[in-house]
Amino acid sequence: MQKVDVKKMFGGSVKAWRKRLGMSQEQLAERADLHRTYVSDVERGARNLSLESITRMAYALNITVAELFPTEQPNG
Amino acid sequence: MQKVDVKKMFGGSVKAWRKRLGMSQEQLAERADLHRTYVSDVERGARNLSLESITRMAYALNITVAELFPTEQPNG
Repeated sequence: MQKVDVKKMFGGSVKAWRKRLGMSQEQLAERADLHRTYVSDVERGARNLSLESITRMAYALNITVAELFPTEQPNG
Repeated sequence: MQKVDVKKMFGGSVKAWRKRLGMSQEQLAERADLHRTYVSDVERGARNLSLESITRMAYALNITVAELFPTEQPNG
């Protein structure tokens, strides 16, 4: 299996998109109807989010789920 | 929030990729180190998979996680 920590990769991606959009964690949390601490946990790679929560984050960032993931295999 | 059932969308995507690769559910399950019934549940949209399980499915299909998701917003 993959050595890359997908939770950390995903968290970094959420954070990068959020900053690109000039949103605070509070604003993202509000848009996603989640707690700010949850968003914070996600961004530091501490959450193994479900398909539905991933979709909710993408929706709040106004991007597709696909855009939250690298287009290249991390090991390729 | 989205009206599209993301679990069903994801399941359909896994199934389409699996068939494109000429794999049986048994073969995919074995490659992903999961039970065949789990793969079957995923494909019919009955599972809200975690980030790590999603990654495992993509890895077993030899594709990126991004490739399991549509590149267009379902509602856009």
